[in-house]
Amino acid sequence: GVAPAVHAQTDIRWRLVSSFPKTLDTIYIAAEVFAKKVAEATNGRFIISVHAGGELVPPLGVVDAVQQGTVECAHTSPYYFFGKDDTFAIDCAIPFGLNSRQMSAWTYEGNGLQLFREFYRNYNIVNFAMGNTGAQMGGWYRHEIKTLADIRGLKIRIGGFSGKVFSALGAVPQSIPGGETYQALEKGVIDAAEWVGPYDDEKFGFYKVAKHYYYPGWWEGGPQLALYVNAKAWEQLPADYKAILTTAASHAHVHMQARYDVVNPPALKRLVAKGTQVHRFSPQIMQAAYDASMALYSDLSAKNPAWRKIYADYAAFRDEQVLWARFAEASFDQFMQTGRNKKR
Amino acid sequence: GVAPAVHAQTDIRWRLVSSFPKTLDTIYIAAEVFAKKVAEATNGRFIISVHAGGELVPPLGVVDAVQQGTVECAHTSPYYFFGKDDTFAIDCAIPFGLNSRQMSAWTYEGNGLQLFREFYRNYNIVNFAMGNTGAQMGGWYRHEIKTLADIRGLKIRIGGFSGKVFSALGAVPQSIPGGETYQALEKGVIDAAEWVGPYDDEKFGFYKVAKHYYYPGWWEGGPQLALYVNAKAWEQLPADYKAILTTAASHAHVHMQARYDVVNPPALKRLVAKGTQVHRFSPQIMQAAYDASMALYSDLSAKNPAWRKIYADYAAFRDEQVLWARFAEASFDQFMQTGRNKKR
Repeated sequence: GVAPAVHAQTDIRWRLVSSFPKTLDTIYIAAEVFAKKVAEATNGRFIISVHAGGELVPPLGVVDAVQQGTVECAHTSPYYFFGKDDTFAIDCAIPFGLNSRQMSAWTYEGNGLQLFREFYRNYNIVNFAMGNTGAQMGGWYRHEIKTLADIRGLKIRIGGFSGKVFSALGAVPQSIPGGETYQALEKGVIDAAEWVGPYDDEKFGFYKVAKHYYYPGWWEGGPQLALYVNAKAWEQLPADYKAILTTAASHAHVHMQARYDVVNPPALKRLVAKGTQVHRFSPQIMQAAYDASMALYSDLSAKNPAWRKIYADYAAFRDEQVLWARFAEASFDQFMQTGRNKKR
Repeated sequence: GVAPAVHAQTDIRWRLVSSFPKTLDTIYIAAEVFAKKVAEATNGRFIISVHAGGELVPPLGVVDAVQQGTVECAHTSPYYFFGKDDTFAIDCAIPFGLNSRQMSAWTYEGNGLQLFREFYRNYNIVNFAMGNTGAQMGGWYRHEIKTLADIRGLKIRIGGFSGKVFSALGAVPQSIPGGETYQALEKGVIDAAEWVGPYDDEKFGFYKVAKHYYYPGWWEGGPQLALYVNAKAWEQLPADYKAILTTAASHAHVHMQARYDVVNPPALKRLVAKGTQVHRFSPQIMQAAYDASMALYSDLSAKNPAWRKIYADYAAFRDEQVLWARFAEASFDQFMQTGRNKKR
């Protein structure tokens, strides 16, 4: 039998602002999974209300809101904030960076979390990994993209940091809100648009107006979402609530990647059934994008000490991971994907 | 400010028996990470002591111990218990099964957890995913293995369920305790031995007596560890402790895969520097092993209703995952592993 004890616990109410709309359900729900677990683990004494993008603060205003203490926490994609400092992007995804599992490894057991804890001190933020989409698709194109010549002049709706690499290749990145992208693509105002992957893309109906669907999204090999907590709010938490928040974030982290892995395969099948043509980016385009990305990173390392410090660790980690992955992981996956026969 | 409140909490002491020795540190530590987070999240009121294999019960006695309530919980590899029912193996790894990420997806957001919750009711067990090693290596061989002829008669130290597939290929699987494997390999009592991957294998020094190191471990593409909790002990937990245990298990789950990903790459480099020759299993061997595995699964489905039910769901999930992985994930990983040039 167990003896009940009396223990002082603390009632806390926090607000979490998401950068995402509820329609981006797989991402949005990760914040709800997190908040639900925190509530359950505290018998409802630590309640975090979750607010969709725009409800309390604009989707891209969440860093300012956490930094200023307007809200206690946020769930977002760090690369949205490359305008403040390009280094933010490394905490999410940069072209030809780490994949989903490698980002988890770097964050949890490499130097990733510690390096970004230092970086975010300037923003009064304590960060946690909270979700990943996995490698994204490369977007929807009205016409086939076979060579670099097809990229030059391409008006593509693409978010943030990776637009720099498209620019280097001669494309003309466009900033268009998600909700207006379909119409712009339909009318030919833009030639292409990238969003996430089959499950999220299907809801926008892009396949109806741009039938060429490319892969991989080399600029987002494993975008990791972050939970940002205001540093003062974090410090005021009792130690048990800190542990509860930490493990609930880990739980939501696993949950979100698992959810994407479950919903994407049938969505891709439906898209293909509706006439989507799936293409792989050519080696020429991949290599040129890779070279442009590495040139960009060299440039940033020369100009930005924060980038230089964190990217050096990230790049060394990436090279070790990629070398190791060629052995057991890749050979196993490749046999399953292409080598095995059809018997079950 | 926050107002302190008085809340009745419960003092609980549990014992966790691990199937692993402390020397298998990456796996063993996952149980400690779990217990530490549970303690932190409850201000030391829910304490789970962690006991290495053999300390309280034999390494392979942990299911019986949890089932009978001798201890409250265990950390183990479900496939150890295929002798009770082959279905146990699906909850861990079967040849040509799911990889690490796919196992997480099936468990957390597919039907995996629910199917095994039902299965384990007969054992008074409530199960949780808690860790993964990632795809393992294929073991150490005194001589090169090029064709199926080289496998016939091969005396290989290999654990459990996957020994059935080696037997079908004409090998002679050997059950030898981990600690005696080095000597058996050195003296030629056995021709080969498989263990885990570079980090764990290096500690045994197999490279000194068998220089051929094969990959992939097609019988362990993503072995998932489990936390087994005695059903009665689980039901007696207050709701907040249930949530705390659940999220702490998820935290340890992410932690363990991340830790393996960090420690394996440098270990493989050290092994190669010491003269290890790394080889990929030939397509002929892979295909024959695949065919033998599928024949085994058909046979088990015909004989064992529990296997049939769970394997049908697992296999359908695997086929969806493998098809989807060929697009964004695999093409991204492949470019990183083999396509990119050396510039950073």
